[in-house]
Amino acid sequence: MISNVPKSVTYEQGHLIFLDQTKLPNEVVFEEQTSVEQVWHSIKMLKIRGAPAIGVAGAYGLSLGARNLLKKNPQISPENFTRELEKIADYLDSSRPTAVNLKWALKRMLSSLHAHPAKNAKDICNFLEQEAILIHEEDKKLCKKIGENGLPLIKNGMGILTHCNAGALAVSELGTALAPIYLAHDKGIKVKVYSDETRPLLQGSRLTSWELMQAGVDVTLITDNMAAHIMSQGLINMVIVGADRVAANGDVANKIGTHGVAILAKHFGIPFYVACPFSTIDLKTATGKDIEIEERGAEEVCHFGERRTAPEKVKVRNPAFDVTPHALVTGLITEMGLFPNPYAEKIKQLYLK
Amino acid sequence: MISNVPKSVTYEQGHLIFLDQTKLPNEVVFEEQTSVEQVWHSIKMLKIRGAPAIGVAGAYGLSLGARNLLKKNPQISPENFTRELEKIADYLDSSRPTAVNLKWALKRMLSSLHAHPAKNAKDICNFLEQEAILIHEEDKKLCKKIGENGLPLIKNGMGILTHCNAGALAVSELGTALAPIYLAHDKGIKVKVYSDETRPLLQGSRLTSWELMQAGVDVTLITDNMAAHIMSQGLINMVIVGADRVAANGDVANKIGTHGVAILAKHFGIPFYVACPFSTIDLKTATGKDIEIEERGAEEVCHFGERRTAPEKVKVRNPAFDVTPHALVTGLITEMGLFPNPYAEKIKQLYLK
Repeated sequence: MISNVPKSVTYEQGHLIFLDQTKLPNEVVFEEQTSVEQVWHSIKMLKIRGAPAIGVAGAYGLSLGARNLLKKNPQISPENFTRELEKIADYLDSSRPTAVNLKWALKRMLSSLHAHPAKNAKDICNFLEQEAILIHEEDKKLCKKIGENGLPLIKNGMGILTHCNAGALAVSELGTALAPIYLAHDKGIKVKVYSDETRPLLQGSRLTSWELMQAGVDVTLITDNMAAHIMSQGLINMVIVGADRVAANGDVANKIGTHGVAILAKHFGIPFYVACPFSTIDLKTATGKDIEIEERGAEEVCHFGERRTAPEKVKVRNPAFDVTPHALVTGLITEMGLFPNPYAEKIKQLYLK
Repeated sequence: MISNVPKSVTYEQGHLIFLDQTKLPNEVVFEEQTSVEQVWHSIKMLKIRGAPAIGVAGAYGLSLGARNLLKKNPQISPENFTRELEKIADYLDSSRPTAVNLKWALKRMLSSLHAHPAKNAKDICNFLEQEAILIHEEDKKLCKKIGENGLPLIKNGMGILTHCNAGALAVSELGTALAPIYLAHDKGIKVKVYSDETRPLLQGSRLTSWELMQAGVDVTLITDNMAAHIMSQGLINMVIVGADRVAANGDVANKIGTHGVAILAKHFGIPFYVACPFSTIDLKTATGKDIEIEERGAEEVCHFGERRTAPEKVKVRNPAFDVTPHALVTGLITEMGLFPNPYAEKIKQLYLK
């Protein structure tokens, strides 16, 4: 664990604590979660966000639910207990229905439970706690491995541009895109990170610049439209971003603006890397064209806080993601290795193994 | 005059009226200017903005000052009157010291006055009013001519991307980049304009989308980082932007983000045009490298209204402009004609004439 990199979720001596990301960067509030309802609310209200972090949060939430239930009803039979836990899992899953990792983590918790010969409710409780901790630890290891696989790319004195937040706050620790940067920083390799603010929701300004500052990494915040100018000044040697989905042909869906950054990087001859867990690669999606782009509400573009900044009734486009064609990607950084372009055939083979 | 295109400055029957741009798009407030101090304050507080508009405003401000002075002191000698007017011009010029057009307009008003054999103060008053109206009319004609020279580029059904505000609000009417669009709209040519919001100051969202809506032009607001995605969908057939300065070799300084848009346009094979008055071309500036880029305060990037959106003490870059290399510019649209790339030699010859 690299010192001072913020943690979105911690679990210590039975205490589940989330960093409330809705209050960042103005307030740093760690909130202990004491009920399933509170965990549900924290996920729903985006106090905790980022697909892997939500998965970990959901697993701990179910474990917390088991303990609270046992306290209330110490004599409950293993059968009734398991039935109640299935209801709690459904409830937690409803906090963010589109979060694949949340569904996956809850399903894994229940499947493991079903496969585990439980003698009593207390036994089930302990088992679920261990499974949640395991999910958490696996995510940490995965991030560290992504960091290690990306680390050789980072040289002393480099300027690195990132977009949105694929950092520690989105996962259990270290992040995906930011993991190699944290590991480099830990080794004394000096880098200068530029963080795109990432309109409309400003994840780069609210989250990425904040977490890098906490860890002591040199970070400079820019608006999205400054990237070309900063690149033209020779200040950027590499771009690293995360990914929401990678298609079988290698096209990358990620936060809106990523495609533009990739084109600018190509124009200036700057390597453009995508860091993500191997599970982000979806062989069932043939190409980027098959990825449906979520169109979000106009208010995110037209308002800031309570303040309206665009004319009433103005037409707005608000795609949440864009697709970067694989030809613009220099390489994929995953826990399975660093895959230089062309990587589509290679990742397919690895998957089929 | 195209109907419903908003006017930043109007002068009718002795009434000088500014549209208060600081209140847009939430409130549309026209404010009559009744004193030199009020005009100074309006320019200072950016109620009126855009280099040509400020020049026109300054000229009318001096004319207003002359009339008010004459009312207070009807017996003033032409010599004393002229001396007082020089002081008023200096005062008005101090409202935005870097605004070249303001200085130019006030200087022209005074030079014309000095060249004019005035019999009395009333005569001077009338003369200055006529000169201000002339400056205003010349700017209108110039914009119309830019519009006419750009008009042949615009075809029915086109999608056009613009950045920042080079519209009617920045000049006397019609704008520079938006002038061809307004003329096309007036002729029934249907276009779909995409307006980059233009962080950090959101001129695209507050001003450009507002003025296009007023005129009934189909406009869609996007955040700056959506341009690549929108282009990749085949929705953009042309980009038109304004310019703050054009160097002798054709490099274009304009609002931050312009360079990035030009690179994206090149990547997608979309023509990229720059519309500006011929006076924007500065032969004394050899190349874009010789243009000093103003770096503005961090608060514009870190705040929104009173709300802080970035960590305290985060490092920030905030260049107000960038330089688009001439190689990325398809052509210059000026009142002297449309100059396809390469245009540097042609504009030099025209200048030397």
